Amino acid sequence: MTIVLYDLAGAEEDRRFSPYCWRTRMALAHKGLPVETVAWRFTDKQAIAFSGQGRVPVIVDKGKTVFDSWSIAEYLEDAYPDRPSLFGGSDEKPLTRFYSCLADTLVGGIFRFIALDILNHLHDKDRTYFRKSREERVGATLESYVADRDARLTSLRDSLTPLRLTLKMQRYLGGDRPLYADYALFGPFQWARCISPFALLARDDPIALWRDRLLDSFGGLARSSPGYDGPSS
Amino acid sequence: MTIVLYDLAGAEEDRRFSPYCWRTRMALAHKGLPVETVAWRFTDKQAIAFSGQGRVPVIVDKGKTVFDSWSIAEYLEDAYPDRPSLFGGSDEKPLTRFYSCLADTLVGGIFRFIALDILNHLHDKDRTYFRKSREERVGATLESYVADRDARLTSLRDSLTPLRLTLKMQRYLGGDRPLYADYALFGPFQWARCISPFALLARDDPIALWRDRLLDSFGGLARSSPGYDGPSS
Repeated sequence: MTIVLYDLAGAEEDRRFSPYCWRTRMALAHKGLPVETVAWRFTDKQAIAFSGQGRVPVIVDKGKTVFDSWSIAEYLEDAYPDRPSLFGGSDEKPLTRFYSCLADTLVGGIFRFIALDILNHLHDKDRTYFRKSREERVGATLESYVADRDARLTSLRDSLTPLRLTLKMQRYLGGDRPLYADYALFGPFQWARCISPFALLARDDPIALWRDRLLDSFGGLARSSPGYDGPSS
Repeated sequence: MTIVLYDLAGAEEDRRFSPYCWRTRMALAHKGLPVETVAWRFTDKQAIAFSGQGRVPVIVDKGKTVFDSWSIAEYLEDAYPDRPSLFGGSDEKPLTRFYSCLADTLVGGIFRFIALDILNHLHDKDRTYFRKSREERVGATLESYVADRDARLTSLRDSLTPLRLTLKMQRYLGGDRPLYADYALFGPFQWARCISPFALLARDDPIALWRDRLLDSFGGLARSSPGYDGPSS
């Protein structure tokens, strides 16, 4: 039975850009589970009201509703134990939690670079909501929030040093194959790629090479989403 | 047969403060392996020349010499597979690598707070070497390097947000029991505790509570080392 995923979309129906939904997309692909996605916009609160909250990802599987990317990963691991493990094994779930928290923090860091690009790719009906809610959150206009992003780039790249060192030594965080730890941290980079031409990573950065491998995995699932694959992004 | 560990010491023979040696001490305790430590100072290069390099930790086990904390962890896991796993299981070693890289980076971050305190706790014979090599590395006198540490504290604490979020949800990075991922990140905090009264963490920080649990583990092994356990450190 196909799992339904409510998946954040931009102006175009196929521009799916949520860092959290991408974790779920990759996790579903890792498990080899068929999925039917439903394009969802920020203001479509009514469409997911059945989940009891207002954010995506939300999945519906065999009549069961699960929301929150981490909870969905746990659910998929428990519901489909015979499929490839998302965590590597039963003991690795706690070890993976930190990666999820780190990725959440990275979303905040990258937002300082792409906030305005997100706005520019949203469906018309989402723009007022997005600008208002995000400007309240960050205490600045989106324009001023990203204005010094060039000057901030070195600091962002420096903050990724531990990830870079690790990916110099192994192909994935999970070793020779990706695990949920990889998908969790891939999410923010795929979010940025879907929405912004800004080059967060140098082309020869081991993190960029790892991102490329994940873009190509599952038959190029993530790469097939509209996005920016410029020479230096 | 007892494993020998060359272990960095301060002026007092029992002030063992290396963040890297502490990873090894905790890993040996986790495996339940008896150890005999040899107090070593930075300038005792000759004493470990047999290892082919000049840094600790170095262990000698059944005639075999291993150096570098990560290599030692891998060695112990392979040589003592019947003892409790350091990584949680065979697949978790790659997932643990990132924690080790993150801890290495954290050593650099914390050094900006405790560099001068280290100097003040060193054996006389190490002081000139330490000041010269570290001042060359950071491009400043140790005094000026730490001068603005109060102003930097918020930034350091903010950088620990993902660790804090994780440890709000689980007792250890490894879940309900510590793993090498915990010991790797505990190392820098124990280093600071051994050498400096500066309070890196607020007392009620979930990271401080986790550090306390690790200080108390293995019969208080880490807490028994001379250090600063002030009301707010």
